[in-house]
Amino acid sequence: MEGELHEQEDAIVLEQPLTIIVNGEEFATLVCSPEHLDELVLGFLASEGVIRFHDDIHQLSIDEERGFAYVDLSVPLAPASSFSKRFIGSCCGKSRQFYLLNDVKTAKTITTSTRIRVEQCFALMNTLQNESTVFRHTGGVHNAALCNEEGMIIARSDIGRHNALDKIYGYCLRHAIPMRDKLVAFSGRVSSEILLKASKMGAGIVLSKSAPTDLALQLADDLHMTVVGFIRGTTLNIYTHPERIIV
Amino acid sequence: MEGELHEQEDAIVLEQPLTIIVNGEEFATLVCSPEHLDELVLGFLASEGVIRFHDDIHQLSIDEERGFAYVDLSVPLAPASSFSKRFIGSCCGKSRQFYLLNDVKTAKTITTSTRIRVEQCFALMNTLQNESTVFRHTGGVHNAALCNEEGMIIARSDIGRHNALDKIYGYCLRHAIPMRDKLVAFSGRVSSEILLKASKMGAGIVLSKSAPTDLALQLADDLHMTVVGFIRGTTLNIYTHPERIIV
Repeated sequence: MEGELHEQEDAIVLEQPLTIIVNGEEFATLVCSPEHLDELVLGFLASEGVIRFHDDIHQLSIDEERGFAYVDLSVPLAPASSFSKRFIGSCCGKSRQFYLLNDVKTAKTITTSTRIRVEQCFALMNTLQNESTVFRHTGGVHNAALCNEEGMIIARSDIGRHNALDKIYGYCLRHAIPMRDKLVAFSGRVSSEILLKASKMGAGIVLSKSAPTDLALQLADDLHMTVVGFIRGTTLNIYTHPERIIV
Repeated sequence: MEGELHEQEDAIVLEQPLTIIVNGEEFATLVCSPEHLDELVLGFLASEGVIRFHDDIHQLSIDEERGFAYVDLSVPLAPASSFSKRFIGSCCGKSRQFYLLNDVKTAKTITTSTRIRVEQCFALMNTLQNESTVFRHTGGVHNAALCNEEGMIIARSDIGRHNALDKIYGYCLRHAIPMRDKLVAFSGRVSSEILLKASKMGAGIVLSKSAPTDLALQLADDLHMTVVGFIRGTTLNIYTHPERIIV
């Protein structure tokens, strides 16, 4: 009742630091939802350009209680300084919109001819929302899903926007899933970082119930990716490469 | 009309990389909303423990078009490797919940006796929502505001959750605003990183319309900060240190 104060237990979303040690050296600390941590590590390292395949990791062990992941690579590791360096194009503002050197190496132009029906966009976004029990209970996570034209294949949640997508990426690497006919559905805003991750995975279509940014759309246009946003009820916006959406 | 396809112009939220060069060396690249960049740089550097006061910066210039900020410090700069190192407490899981070494140095236990009325929590969250014209037009940004018990002092928006708060922090540093009687209102989820930023600023109360995480609440409890979440309509949840909220 209004104006009254009640003391009660509430379900709170979990958050935990995870420090990734690569070849014995501290590589990065993520803050994440403590589930599917092996997938998160795989996806994060692939997204950063440290690995390309599951086999590039010789050994991976996770200490869940203390929040550490220990990775031994079977491929050489680039110097730490190369990962977050700013990329300066030869021709300011006219060339590709990449802003990190690492993305120049890892982002892919998408050539898939996979298309999906507009009704399927609505259905997939509905499924993504309904699947997430954590979200319904605590209101605190982002959801990402790997889909094809027949439906949702796998969904992951995380308090970190990027982590949810990295977990999907890790799942794909572990199971060597071909990406040509796949798409990514995302509960949050499509920023440049989300778009670049989907491109690195090799997905041609990104669906979101939320808004894209201008930089994400410039990158999507350039990388031949289809961005569909504001998928709510029976309306949606197709922002780039509409040829993959069957109306 | 349902099933129809319309081509139309839409307002898209802007996103831009900003690379911060400190004493001639590349320090970090943020992706942000391109406004109040000077405040963002100040707040980010303070949050990372690079500066403590506005005077710690000898010179700051921003190249908005190319997305670069050039900072010359009037204080010594710690080695780059020290900023994102994992902090290992002496007593696993029993001591403070800090996970980065940097936070051990910069996060503050809050001793303020400032209190606010529960009605003011509702009013401030309403104002924060109404103020943000960018959000209403594009649906793509987070909002943060500096408030006191009389109302909102300054609000900032950014596509990045942390950036919105860093801009507020930068504003406070530039204007040397005392924080003892201030609070922070935030549109997004209160994660550990948001909580720590508010602590570094010195704010004793964090208001949000969204959910906190368990790690944020452990930190808030430990740092003597009051977290109020799910402020919607006429209901809210007080999670930690309720003595600052007058019901």
